[in-house]
Amino acid sequence: MTDINTTTRDDAHPLDEALALQPGAPGHYSGRSTPAYWNMVGPFGGVTAATLLAAVLRHPQVLGEPLSLTVNYAAAIGEGDFTVQAVPVRTNRSTQHWTVSVLQPPAPGAEPQVTTTATVVTAVRRETWSAADMALPAVPAPARCPQVGPLFPVQWLRRYEMRPVGGALPPEWDGREADSLSQLWMRDAPARPLDFPALAAMADIFFPRVWLRRARQVPAGTVSITVYFHAGAPLLAATGTGYVLGQARAQEFRNGFFDQTAQLWNEAGALLATSHQIVYYKE
Amino acid sequence: MTDINTTTRDDAHPLDEALALQPGAPGHYSGRSTPAYWNMVGPFGGVTAATLLAAVLRHPQVLGEPLSLTVNYAAAIGEGDFTVQAVPVRTNRSTQHWTVSVLQPPAPGAEPQVTTTATVVTAVRRETWSAADMALPAVPAPARCPQVGPLFPVQWLRRYEMRPVGGALPPEWDGREADSLSQLWMRDAPARPLDFPALAAMADIFFPRVWLRRARQVPAGTVSITVYFHAGAPLLAATGTGYVLGQARAQEFRNGFFDQTAQLWNEAGALLATSHQIVYYKE
Repeated sequence: MTDINTTTRDDAHPLDEALALQPGAPGHYSGRSTPAYWNMVGPFGGVTAATLLAAVLRHPQVLGEPLSLTVNYAAAIGEGDFTVQAVPVRTNRSTQHWTVSVLQPPAPGAEPQVTTTATVVTAVRRETWSAADMALPAVPAPARCPQVGPLFPVQWLRRYEMRPVGGALPPEWDGREADSLSQLWMRDAPARPLDFPALAAMADIFFPRVWLRRARQVPAGTVSITVYFHAGAPLLAATGTGYVLGQARAQEFRNGFFDQTAQLWNEAGALLATSHQIVYYKE
Repeated sequence: MTDINTTTRDDAHPLDEALALQPGAPGHYSGRSTPAYWNMVGPFGGVTAATLLAAVLRHPQVLGEPLSLTVNYAAAIGEGDFTVQAVPVRTNRSTQHWTVSVLQPPAPGAEPQVTTTATVVTAVRRETWSAADMALPAVPAPARCPQVGPLFPVQWLRRYEMRPVGGALPPEWDGREADSLSQLWMRDAPARPLDFPALAAMADIFFPRVWLRRARQVPAGTVSITVYFHAGAPLLAATGTGYVLGQARAQEFRNGFFDQTAQLWNEAGALLATSHQIVYYKE
Protein backbone atom coordinates (compact mmCIF):
# COMPACT_ATOMS: atom_id res chain seq x y z
CA MET A 1 0.00 0.00 0.00
CA THR A 2 2.88 2.33 0.65
CA ASP A 3 3.72 2.48 -3.05
CA ILE A 4 0.34 3.87 -3.91
CA ASN A 5 0.87 6.68 -1.45
CA THR A 6 4.38 7.22 -2.76
CA THR A 7 3.01 8.36 -6.10
CA THR A 8 1.14 11.21 -4.48
CA ARG A 9 3.66 12.28 -1.86
CA ASP A 10 5.08 15.64 -2.76
CA ASP A 11 8.49 14.73 -1.41
CA ALA A 12 8.81 11.42 -3.27
CA HIS A 13 12.00 10.96 -5.27
CA PRO A 14 11.23 10.91 -9.01
CA LEU A 15 12.77 7.43 -9.29
CA ASP A 16 10.43 6.12 -6.61
CA GLU A 17 7.53 7.67 -8.49
CA ALA A 18 8.67 5.98 -11.70
CA LEU A 19 9.03 2.61 -9.93
CA ALA A 20 5.66 2.77 -8.15
CA LEU A 21 3.69 -0.40 -8.87
CA GLN A 22 0.23 -1.40 -7.80
CA PRO A 23 -0.31 -5.14 -7.25
CA GLY A 24 -3.25 -6.79 -9.02
CA ALA A 25 -3.58 -10.51 -9.77
CA PRO A 26 -0.66 -12.60 -8.42
CA GLY A 27 2.53 -11.48 -10.17
CA HIS A 28 0.73 -8.66 -12.01
CA TYR A 29 1.61 -5.07 -11.28
CA SER A 30 0.27 -1.83 -12.75
CA GLY A 31 2.72 0.95 -13.44
CA ARG A 32 2.64 4.24 -15.25
CA SER A 33 5.34 5.87 -17.35
CA THR A 34 6.37 9.17 -15.80
CA PRO A 35 7.40 12.31 -17.69
CA ALA A 36 10.37 12.70 -15.34
CA TYR A 37 12.31 9.89 -17.09
CA TRP A 38 11.02 10.47 -20.62
CA ASN A 39 13.50 9.87 -23.44
CA MET A 40 12.78 10.66 -27.07
CA VAL A 41 9.99 8.16 -27.87
CA GLY A 42 9.41 6.45 -24.54
CA PRO A 43 10.81 6.10 -21.02
CA PHE A 44 14.60 5.90 -20.52
CA GLY A 45 15.41 2.21 -20.99
CA GLY A 46 17.27 2.09 -17.70
CA VAL A 47 14.10 3.00 -15.82
CA THR A 48 12.18 0.29 -17.64
CA ALA A 49 14.84 -2.21 -16.56
CA ALA A 50 14.59 -0.88 -13.01
CA THR A 51 10.81 -1.22 -13.05
CA LEU A 52 10.95 -4.87 -14.16
CA LEU A 53 13.42 -5.60 -11.40
CA ALA A 54 11.28 -3.74 -8.85
CA ALA A 55 8.33 -5.97 -9.74
CA VAL A 56 10.39 -9.09 -8.99
CA LEU A 57 11.73 -7.64 -5.75
CA ARG A 58 8.27 -6.89 -4.38
CA HIS A 59 6.84 -10.27 -5.41
CA PRO A 60 5.86 -12.18 -2.24
CA GLN A 61 7.75 -15.29 -3.42
CA VAL A 62 11.10 -13.63 -4.19
CA LEU A 63 14.17 -15.52 -2.99
CA GLY A 64 17.35 -13.59 -2.23
CA GLU A 65 18.72 -10.63 -4.16
CA PRO A 66 19.23 -9.86 -7.87
CA LEU A 67 22.09 -11.68 -9.56
CA SER A 68 21.32 -11.29 -13.26
CA LEU A 69 18.87 -9.21 -15.31
CA THR A 70 18.34 -9.29 -19.08
CA VAL A 71 15.86 -6.87 -20.66
CA ASN A 72 14.84 -6.96 -24.33
CA TYR A 73 13.24 -3.78 -25.68
CA ALA A 74 10.72 -5.08 -28.20
CA ALA A 75 8.78 -1.83 -28.59
CA ALA A 76 8.72 1.63 -27.07
CA ILE A 77 6.51 1.97 -24.00
CA GLY A 78 4.00 4.75 -24.53
CA GLU A 79 2.60 7.30 -22.13
CA GLY A 80 0.25 6.07 -19.44
CA ASP A 81 -0.44 2.74 -17.78
CA PHE A 82 1.35 -0.55 -18.37
CA THR A 83 1.28 -3.96 -16.72
CA VAL A 84 4.32 -5.88 -15.48
CA GLN A 85 3.98 -9.66 -15.20
CA ALA A 86 6.62 -11.43 -13.09
CA VAL A 87 6.61 -15.23 -12.90
CA PRO A 88 8.98 -17.33 -10.75
CA VAL A 89 9.32 -20.24 -13.16
CA ARG A 90 11.80 -22.25 -11.12
CA THR A 91 12.92 -21.95 -7.51
CA ASN A 92 15.99 -23.87 -6.38
CA ARG A 93 17.63 -23.98 -2.99
CA SER A 94 19.62 -20.79 -3.47
CA THR A 95 18.65 -19.42 -6.91
CA GLN A 96 15.34 -18.43 -8.48
CA HIS A 97 14.58 -17.95 -12.18
CA TRP A 98 12.05 -15.37 -13.35
CA THR A 99 10.43 -14.44 -16.62
CA VAL A 100 9.08 -10.90 -16.75
CA SER A 101 7.22 -8.92 -19.37
CA VAL A 102 5.66 -5.51 -19.83
CA LEU A 103 2.34 -5.24 -21.65
CA GLN A 104 0.55 -2.16 -22.86
CA PRO A 105 -2.33 -1.55 -25.27
CA PRO A 106 -0.94 0.20 -28.37
CA ALA A 107 -4.04 2.43 -28.34
CA PRO A 108 -6.81 3.06 -25.78
CA GLY A 109 -9.18 0.08 -25.75
CA ALA A 110 -6.88 -2.16 -27.82
CA GLU A 111 -5.56 -5.53 -26.67
CA PRO A 112 -2.37 -5.22 -24.62
CA GLN A 113 0.81 -6.14 -26.49
CA VAL A 114 4.23 -7.14 -25.18
CA THR A 115 6.59 -4.17 -25.25
CA THR A 116 9.42 -5.67 -23.19
CA THR A 117 10.61 -9.15 -22.23
CA ALA A 118 13.05 -9.98 -19.49
CA THR A 119 14.58 -12.74 -17.43
CA VAL A 120 15.86 -12.29 -13.90
CA VAL A 121 17.86 -14.58 -11.64
CA THR A 122 17.82 -13.92 -7.92
CA ALA A 123 20.09 -15.69 -5.45
CA VAL A 124 20.75 -16.11 -1.78
CA ARG A 125 24.40 -15.22 -1.40
CA ARG A 126 26.80 -16.03 1.36
CA GLU A 127 30.31 -14.80 2.07
CA THR A 128 33.03 -16.71 0.23
CA TRP A 129 36.49 -16.11 -1.12
CA SER A 130 36.15 -13.05 -3.37
CA ALA A 131 38.50 -11.17 -5.69
CA ALA A 132 38.47 -8.36 -8.23
CA ASP A 133 39.92 -8.79 -11.73
CA MET A 134 38.74 -5.41 -13.00
CA ALA A 135 39.98 -2.69 -10.70
CA LEU A 136 38.60 0.83 -10.48
CA PRO A 137 40.58 2.80 -13.08
CA ALA A 138 42.91 5.58 -11.95
CA VAL A 139 40.57 8.56 -12.27
CA PRO A 140 40.24 11.90 -10.47
CA ALA A 141 37.80 12.07 -7.55
CA PRO A 142 34.22 13.19 -8.34
CA ALA A 143 34.75 16.64 -6.82
CA ARG A 144 37.56 17.25 -9.31
CA CYS A 145 35.35 16.38 -12.32
CA PRO A 146 32.97 19.27 -13.10
CA GLN A 147 29.30 18.43 -13.38
CA VAL A 148 27.79 18.84 -16.85
CA GLY A 149 24.24 19.75 -17.76
CA PRO A 150 22.00 17.50 -19.86
CA LEU A 151 23.86 16.52 -23.03
CA PHE A 152 20.71 16.82 -25.10
CA PRO A 153 17.21 18.02 -24.28
CA VAL A 154 15.42 14.99 -22.84
CA GLN A 155 13.89 14.78 -19.38
CA TRP A 156 15.68 11.70 -18.02
CA LEU A 157 19.11 13.30 -18.29
CA ARG A 158 17.97 15.82 -15.68
CA ARG A 159 17.49 12.93 -13.25
CA TYR A 160 21.24 12.24 -13.03
CA GLU A 161 24.20 14.20 -11.79
CA MET A 162 26.95 13.45 -14.30
CA ARG A 163 30.62 14.28 -13.89
CA PRO A 164 32.50 13.07 -16.98
CA VAL A 165 36.06 11.87 -16.54
CA GLY A 166 36.73 11.17 -20.21
CA GLY A 167 34.99 10.15 -23.40
CA ALA A 168 32.29 12.81 -23.25
CA LEU A 169 30.29 13.64 -26.36
CA PRO A 170 32.50 14.85 -29.23
CA PRO A 171 32.88 18.64 -29.23
CA GLU A 172 32.04 18.69 -32.94
CA TRP A 173 29.99 16.24 -35.01
CA ASP A 174 32.67 16.17 -37.67
CA GLY A 175 32.77 12.45 -38.41
CA ARG A 176 36.27 12.04 -37.00
CA GLU A 177 36.63 8.47 -35.73
CA ALA A 178 37.83 7.98 -32.16
CA ASP A 179 38.02 5.54 -29.29
CA SER A 180 34.66 4.42 -27.83
CA LEU A 181 35.63 4.53 -24.13
CA SER A 182 33.68 6.74 -21.69
CA GLN A 183 34.12 7.17 -17.96
CA LEU A 184 31.94 9.30 -15.70
CA TRP A 185 31.01 9.74 -12.07
CA MET A 186 27.27 9.71 -11.57
CA ARG A 187 24.48 9.59 -9.07
CA ASP A 188 20.75 10.11 -8.98
CA ALA A 189 19.58 13.74 -8.92
CA PRO A 190 18.48 14.52 -6.31
CA ALA A 191 20.78 12.12 -4.47
CA ARG A 192 19.08 8.88 -3.39
CA PRO A 193 20.53 5.89 -1.49
CA LEU A 194 21.57 3.30 -4.05
CA ASP A 195 19.40 0.19 -4.37
CA PHE A 196 19.17 -2.59 -6.97
CA PRO A 197 16.69 -0.86 -9.32
CA ALA A 198 18.69 2.39 -9.27
CA LEU A 199 21.87 0.45 -10.05
CA ALA A 200 20.16 -1.35 -12.94
CA ALA A 201 19.09 2.00 -14.37
CA MET A 202 22.60 3.43 -14.11
CA ALA A 203 23.95 0.53 -16.17
CA ASP A 204 22.07 1.99 -19.14
CA ILE A 205 23.14 5.62 -18.67
CA PHE A 206 25.83 5.78 -21.37
CA PHE A 207 25.03 7.61 -24.61
CA PRO A 208 25.33 5.43 -27.74
CA ARG A 209 28.95 4.43 -28.35
CA VAL A 210 28.49 5.00 -32.07
CA TRP A 211 28.11 8.75 -31.43
CA LEU A 212 31.51 8.83 -29.78
CA ARG A 213 33.18 6.39 -32.13
CA ARG A 214 32.09 8.23 -35.29
CA ALA A 215 31.53 11.75 -33.96
CA ARG A 216 28.21 11.43 -35.71
CA GLN A 217 24.79 11.53 -34.04
CA VAL A 218 22.93 8.74 -35.84
CA PRO A 219 19.66 7.22 -34.57
CA ALA A 220 20.40 4.44 -32.08
CA GLY A 221 18.52 2.44 -29.45
CA THR A 222 19.22 -0.43 -27.07
CA VAL A 223 17.82 -3.78 -28.21
CA SER A 224 18.90 -5.90 -25.23
CA ILE A 225 20.79 -5.22 -22.00
CA THR A 226 22.14 -7.58 -19.35
CA VAL A 227 23.24 -6.55 -15.87
CA TYR A 228 25.16 -8.79 -13.46
CA PHE A 229 24.96 -7.66 -9.85
CA HIS A 230 28.11 -8.19 -7.82
CA ALA A 231 26.95 -6.05 -4.89
CA GLY A 232 24.66 -7.33 -2.19
CA ALA A 233 22.47 -5.15 0.00
CA PRO A 234 25.23 -4.37 2.54
CA LEU A 235 27.55 -3.02 -0.17
CA LEU A 236 24.74 -0.94 -1.65
CA ALA A 237 24.03 0.44 1.81
CA ALA A 238 27.71 1.27 2.25
CA THR A 239 27.65 3.07 -1.12
CA GLY A 240 24.62 5.07 -0.06
CA THR A 241 24.32 8.38 -1.89
CA GLY A 242 27.97 8.33 -2.95
CA TYR A 243 29.07 8.56 -6.56
CA VAL A 244 29.32 5.62 -8.93
CA LEU A 245 32.00 5.46 -11.61
CA GLY A 246 30.59 4.16 -14.87
CA GLN A 247 32.83 2.96 -17.67
CA ALA A 248 31.60 1.83 -21.08
CA ARG A 249 33.22 0.83 -24.33
CA ALA A 250 32.11 -0.83 -27.53
CA GLN A 251 33.64 -4.01 -28.88
CA GLU A 252 32.23 -4.21 -32.40
CA PHE A 253 30.07 -2.11 -34.71
CA ARG A 254 28.73 -4.27 -37.51
CA ASN A 255 25.90 -3.82 -40.01
CA GLY A 256 23.48 -1.86 -37.87
CA PHE A 257 24.29 -3.13 -34.37
CA PHE A 258 27.07 -2.55 -31.87
CA ASP A 259 27.73 -4.03 -28.45
CA GLN A 260 28.92 -2.33 -25.28
CA THR A 261 30.52 -3.59 -22.10
CA ALA A 262 30.19 -1.53 -18.93
CA GLN A 263 31.39 -1.57 -15.33
CA LEU A 264 30.06 0.32 -12.32
CA TRP A 265 32.22 0.88 -9.22
CA ASN A 266 31.59 2.83 -6.03
CA GLU A 267 34.04 5.47 -4.78
CA ALA A 268 35.71 2.93 -2.50
CA GLY A 269 36.61 0.89 -5.60
CA ALA A 270 34.14 -2.01 -5.20
CA LEU A 271 32.71 -3.31 -8.49
CA LEU A 272 28.95 -3.07 -7.97
CA ALA A 273 27.76 -4.38 -11.33
CA THR A 274 28.88 -5.25 -14.83
CA SER A 275 26.68 -4.83 -17.86
CA HIS A 276 26.51 -5.45 -21.60
CA GLN A 277 24.14 -4.33 -24.27
CA ILE A 278 23.53 -4.62 -27.97
CA VAL A 279 22.34 -1.48 -29.68
CA TYR A 280 20.74 -0.72 -33.02
CA TYR A 281 22.23 2.12 -35.04
CA LYS A 282 21.31 3.64 -38.36
CA GLU A 283 23.84 4.50 -41.01
CA MET B 1 11.81 -34.35 -41.84
CA THR B 2 15.49 -34.29 -42.63
CA ASP B 3 16.37 -33.82 -38.99
CA ILE B 4 14.73 -37.06 -38.01
CA ASN B 5 16.88 -38.85 -40.53
CA THR B 6 19.93 -37.00 -39.32
CA THR B 7 19.72 -38.73 -35.98
CA THR B 8 20.06 -42.12 -37.61
CA ARG B 9 22.60 -41.31 -40.33
CA ASP B 10 25.89 -42.95 -39.52
CA ASP B 11 27.86 -40.06 -40.93
CA ALA B 12 26.02 -37.30 -39.05
CA HIS B 13 28.20 -34.87 -37.12
CA PRO B 14 27.68 -35.29 -33.36
CA LEU B 15 26.63 -31.64 -33.10
CA ASP B 16 23.93 -32.18 -35.70
CA GLU B 17 22.75 -35.20 -33.75
CA ALA B 18 22.63 -33.14 -30.56
CA LEU B 19 20.69 -30.36 -32.31
CA ALA B 20 18.17 -32.66 -33.98
CA LEU B 21 14.64 -31.48 -33.18
CA GLN B 22 11.31 -32.95 -34.14
CA PRO B 23 8.49 -30.45 -34.62
CA GLY B 24 5.23 -31.02 -32.76
CA ALA B 25 2.60 -28.39 -31.99
CA PRO B 26 3.47 -24.93 -33.39
CA GLY B 27 6.67 -23.71 -31.73
CA HIS B 28 7.14 -27.01 -29.86
CA TYR B 29 10.12 -29.22 -30.66
CA SER B 30 11.21 -32.54 -29.19
CA GLY B 31 14.90 -33.10 -28.61
CA ARG B 32 16.99 -35.66 -26.83
CA SER B 33 20.17 -35.14 -24.82
CA THR B 34 23.04 -37.02 -26.44
CA PRO B 35 25.90 -38.74 -24.58
CA ALA B 36 28.35 -37.14 -27.03
CA TYR B 37 28.08 -33.73 -25.30
CA TRP B 38 27.55 -34.95 -21.75
CA ASN B 39 29.15 -32.89 -19.01
CA MET B 40 29.22 -33.91 -15.37
CA VAL B 41 25.51 -33.78 -14.46
CA GLY B 42 23.85 -32.85 -17.76
CA PRO B 43 24.61 -31.75 -21.30
CA PHE B 44 27.36 -29.17 -21.92
CA GLY B 45 25.61 -25.82 -21.42
CA GLY B 46 26.87 -24.57 -24.78
CA VAL B 47 24.98 -27.32 -26.56
CA THR B 48 21.82 -26.46 -24.65
CA ALA B 49 22.22 -22.84 -25.80
CA ALA B 50 22.78 -24.07 -29.35
CA THR B 51 19.66 -26.25 -29.20
CA LEU B 52 17.47 -23.35 -28.05
CA LEU B 53 18.81 -21.23 -30.87
CA ALA B 54 18.30 -24.05 -33.38
CA ALA B 55 14.63 -24.23 -32.38
CA VAL B 56 14.18 -20.52 -33.15
CA LEU B 57 16.04 -20.82 -36.45
CA ARG B 58 13.84 -23.62 -37.72
CA HIS B 59 10.60 -21.94 -36.61
CA PRO B 60 8.54 -21.14 -39.73
CA GLN B 61 8.02 -17.52 -38.59
CA VAL B 62 11.67 -16.66 -37.93
CA LEU B 63 12.76 -13.23 -39.20
CA GLY B 64 16.42 -12.68 -40.06
CA GLU B 65 19.41 -14.04 -38.20
CA PRO B 66 20.41 -14.26 -34.52
CA LEU B 67 21.47 -11.01 -32.90
CA SER B 68 21.23 -11.79 -29.18
CA LEU B 69 20.76 -14.92 -27.08
CA THR B 70 20.40 -15.16 -23.29
CA VAL B 71 20.12 -18.59 -21.68
CA ASN B 72 19.38 -19.14 -17.97
CA TYR B 73 20.24 -22.58 -16.61
CA ALA B 74 17.54 -23.18 -14.00
CA ALA B 75 18.18 -26.91 -13.60
CA ALA B 76 20.30 -29.62 -15.16
CA ILE B 77 18.75 -31.34 -18.16
CA GLY B 78 18.63 -35.07 -17.60
CA GLU B 79 19.12 -37.94 -19.97
CA GLY B 80 16.46 -38.53 -22.58
CA ASP B 81 13.75 -36.44 -24.20
CA PHE B 82 13.02 -32.78 -23.62
CA THR B 83 10.73 -30.22 -25.22
CA VAL B 84 11.77 -26.81 -26.54
CA GLN B 85 9.09 -24.13 -26.76
CA ALA B 86 9.90 -21.11 -28.94
CA VAL B 87 7.44 -18.22 -29.08
CA PRO B 88 7.85 -15.11 -31.27
CA VAL B 89 6.30 -12.63 -28.84
CA ARG B 90 6.85 -9.53 -30.93
CA THR B 91 7.81 -9.07 -34.57
CA ASN B 92 8.88 -5.65 -35.77
CA ARG B 93 9.97 -4.53 -39.21
CA SER B 94 13.57 -5.71 -38.83
CA THR B 95 13.79 -7.34 -35.37
CA GLN B 96 11.93 -10.19 -33.73
CA HIS B 97 11.76 -11.02 -30.00
CA TRP B 98 11.51 -14.61 -28.80
CA THR B 99 10.98 -16.33 -25.48
CA VAL B 100 12.23 -19.88 -25.35
CA SER B 101 12.15 -22.59 -22.70
CA VAL B 102 13.16 -26.20 -22.22
CA LEU B 103 10.85 -28.52 -20.32
CA GLN B 104 11.50 -32.01 -19.10
CA PRO B 105 9.75 -34.30 -16.60
CA PRO B 106 12.02 -34.71 -13.57
CA ALA B 107 11.10 -38.43 -13.53
CA PRO B 108 9.29 -40.72 -15.99
CA GLY B 109 5.58 -39.95 -15.96
CA ALA B 110 5.95 -36.74 -13.91
CA GLU B 111 4.76 -33.32 -15.06
CA PRO B 112 7.34 -31.52 -17.22
CA GLN B 113 9.23 -28.74 -15.43
CA VAL B 114 11.17 -25.80 -16.83
CA THR B 115 14.90 -26.56 -16.86
CA THR B 116 16.03 -23.62 -18.98
CA THR B 117 14.68 -20.20 -19.93
CA ALA B 118 15.94 -18.02 -22.74
CA THR B 119 15.28 -14.95 -24.80
CA VAL B 120 16.44 -14.50 -28.37
CA VAL B 121 16.43 -11.49 -30.67
CA THR B 122 16.73 -12.06 -34.39
CA ALA B 123 17.26 -9.28 -36.91
CA VAL B 124 17.39 -8.56 -40.60
CA ARG B 125 20.75 -6.89 -41.08
CA ARG B 126 21.97 -4.76 -43.90
CA GLU B 127 25.40 -3.45 -44.72
CA THR B 128 26.32 -0.23 -42.95
CA TRP B 129 29.41 1.55 -41.70
CA SER B 130 31.18 -0.97 -39.47
CA ALA B 131 34.25 -0.88 -37.24
CA ALA B 132 36.10 -3.01 -34.73
CA ASP B 133 37.04 -1.74 -31.26
CA MET B 134 38.34 -5.06 -29.98
CA ALA B 135 40.97 -6.38 -32.36
CA LEU B 136 42.18 -9.97 -32.58
CA PRO B 137 45.02 -10.17 -30.04
CA ALA B 138 48.56 -10.83 -31.28
CA VAL B 139 48.69 -14.61 -30.92
CA PRO B 140 50.55 -17.39 -32.74
CA ALA B 141 48.72 -19.12 -35.60
CA PRO B 142 46.72 -22.28 -34.72
CA ALA B 143 49.29 -24.59 -36.29
CA ARG B 144 51.91 -23.23 -33.87
CA CYS B 145 49.74 -23.94 -30.81
CA PRO B 146 49.80 -27.68 -29.98
CA GLN B 147 46.46 -29.39 -29.60
CA VAL B 148 45.67 -30.62 -26.08
CA GLY B 149 43.56 -33.60 -25.09
CA PRO B 150 40.46 -33.29 -22.90
CA LEU B 151 41.34 -31.31 -19.78
CA PHE B 152 39.18 -33.55 -17.62
CA PRO B 153 37.25 -36.73 -18.32
CA VAL B 154 33.90 -35.58 -19.70
CA GLN B 155 32.50 -36.44 -23.12
CA TRP B 156 31.85 -32.95 -24.51
CA LEU B 157 35.49 -31.95 -24.34
CA ARG B 158 36.18 -34.64 -26.95
CA ARG B 159 33.89 -32.77 -29.35
CA TYR B 160 36.31 -29.85 -29.64
CA GLU B 161 39.79 -29.44 -31.00
CA MET B 162 41.49 -27.07 -28.55
CA ARG B 163 44.82 -25.37 -29.06
CA PRO B 164 45.55 -23.19 -26.02
CA VAL B 165 47.50 -19.99 -26.55
CA GLY B 166 47.66 -18.97 -22.90
CA GLY B 167 45.75 -19.27 -19.65
CA ALA B 168 45.38 -23.04 -19.75
CA LEU B 169 44.52 -24.95 -16.60
CA PRO B 170 47.05 -24.41 -13.81
CA PRO B 171 49.79 -27.08 -13.88
CA GLU B 172 49.25 -27.60 -10.14
CA TRP B 173 46.18 -27.03 -7.98
CA ASP B 174 48.26 -25.23 -5.41
CA GLY B 175 45.96 -22.30 -4.63
CA ARG B 176 48.36 -19.75 -6.14
CA GLU B 177 46.30 -16.81 -7.37
CA ALA B 178 46.79 -15.71 -10.97
CA ASP B 179 45.28 -13.74 -13.82
CA SER B 180 41.97 -15.06 -15.16
CA LEU B 181 42.67 -14.55 -18.90
CA SER B 182 42.53 -17.53 -21.29
CA GLN B 183 43.04 -17.63 -25.04
CA LEU B 184 42.67 -20.68 -27.25
CA TRP B 185 42.15 -21.65 -30.86
CA MET B 186 39.24 -24.04 -31.25
CA ARG B 187 36.96 -25.78 -33.67
CA ASP B 188 34.44 -28.57 -33.66
CA ALA B 189 35.88 -32.11 -33.72
CA PRO B 190 35.47 -33.42 -36.30
CA ALA B 191 35.63 -30.12 -38.20
CA ARG B 192 32.22 -28.75 -39.18
CA PRO B 193 31.35 -25.57 -41.10
CA LEU B 194 30.55 -22.87 -38.55
CA ASP B 195 26.91 -21.90 -38.12
CA PHE B 196 25.02 -19.89 -35.49
CA PRO B 197 24.29 -22.77 -33.08
CA ALA B 198 27.91 -23.98 -33.25
CA LEU B 199 29.12 -20.45 -32.52
CA ALA B 200 26.73 -20.13 -29.57
CA ALA B 201 28.10 -23.38 -28.14
CA MET B 202 31.71 -22.21 -28.52
CA ALA B 203 30.92 -19.09 -26.47
CA ASP B 204 30.51 -21.40 -23.46
CA ILE B 205 33.64 -23.49 -23.99
CA PHE B 206 35.88 -21.86 -21.39
CA PHE B 207 36.54 -23.73 -18.14
CA PRO B 208 35.47 -21.84 -14.99
CA ARG B 209 37.62 -18.73 -14.49
CA VAL B 210 37.73 -19.44 -10.76
CA TRP B 211 39.84 -22.54 -11.42
CA LEU B 212 42.44 -20.43 -13.19
CA ARG B 213 42.23 -17.47 -10.83
CA ARG B 214 42.65 -19.55 -7.68
CA ALA B 215 44.44 -22.61 -9.02
CA ARG B 216 41.76 -24.50 -7.17
CA GLN B 217 39.17 -26.77 -8.75
CA VAL B 218 36.00 -25.83 -6.86
CA PRO B 219 32.49 -26.79 -8.03
CA ALA B 220 31.19 -24.20 -10.52
CA GLY B 221 28.39 -23.90 -13.04
CA THR B 222 27.02 -21.29 -15.43
CA VAL B 223 23.82 -19.62 -14.22
CA SER B 224 23.20 -17.31 -17.20
CA ILE B 225 24.99 -16.67 -20.49
CA THR B 226 24.43 -14.01 -23.14
CA VAL B 227 25.83 -14.14 -26.67
CA TYR B 228 25.79 -11.21 -29.11
CA PHE B 229 26.27 -12.25 -32.72
CA HIS B 230 28.27 -9.83 -34.83
CA ALA B 231 28.68 -12.25 -37.75
CA GLY B 232 26.03 -12.75 -40.37
CA ALA B 233 25.69 -15.86 -42.51
CA PRO B 234 28.23 -14.71 -45.16
CA LEU B 235 30.95 -14.23 -42.53
CA LEU B 236 30.18 -17.61 -40.98
CA ALA B 237 30.42 -19.17 -44.44
CA ALA B 238 33.76 -17.43 -44.99
CA THR B 239 34.97 -18.81 -41.65
CA GLY B 240 33.91 -22.32 -42.64
CA THR B 241 35.87 -25.01 -40.84
CA GLY B 242 38.66 -22.62 -39.87
CA TYR B 243 39.74 -22.07 -36.30
CA VAL B 244 38.09 -19.62 -33.91
CA LEU B 245 40.13 -17.74 -31.30
CA GLY B 246 38.30 -17.63 -28.00
CA GLN B 247 39.31 -15.23 -25.25
CA ALA B 248 37.75 -15.11 -21.80
CA ARG B 249 38.45 -13.27 -18.59
CA ALA B 250 36.61 -12.69 -15.33
CA GLN B 251 35.78 -9.25 -13.99
CA GLU B 252 34.67 -9.98 -10.44
CA PHE B 253 34.45 -12.95 -8.09
CA ARG B 254 32.11 -12.14 -5.22
CA ASN B 255 30.32 -14.27 -2.66
CA GLY B 256 29.67 -17.34 -4.75
CA PHE B 257 29.36 -15.88 -8.26
CA PHE B 258 31.80 -14.56 -10.84
CA ASP B 259 31.23 -13.04 -14.26
CA GLN B 260 33.16 -13.63 -17.46
CA THR B 261 33.49 -11.64 -20.68
CA ALA B 262 34.47 -13.46 -23.86
CA GLN B 263 35.26 -12.71 -27.50
CA LEU B 264 35.36 -15.06 -30.50
CA TRP B 265 37.29 -14.12 -33.66
CA ASN B 266 37.97 -16.04 -36.84
CA GLU B 267 41.49 -16.50 -38.18
CA ALA B 268 41.07 -13.50 -40.47
CA GLY B 269 40.53 -11.33 -37.39
CA ALA B 270 36.79 -10.71 -37.68
CA LEU B 271 34.95 -10.60 -34.35
CA LEU B 272 32.21 -13.21 -34.76
CA ALA B 273 30.55 -12.94 -31.36
CA THR B 274 30.96 -11.50 -27.89
CA SER B 275 29.63 -13.21 -24.80
CA HIS B 276 29.20 -12.82 -21.05
CA GLN B 277 28.18 -15.16 -18.33
CA ILE B 278 27.63 -15.32 -14.60
CA VAL B 279 28.80 -18.45 -12.90
CA TYR B 280 28.16 -20.04 -9.53
CA TYR B 281 31.19 -21.23 -7.58
CA LYS B 282 31.56 -22.93 -4.26
CA GLU B 283 34.11 -21.94 -1.68
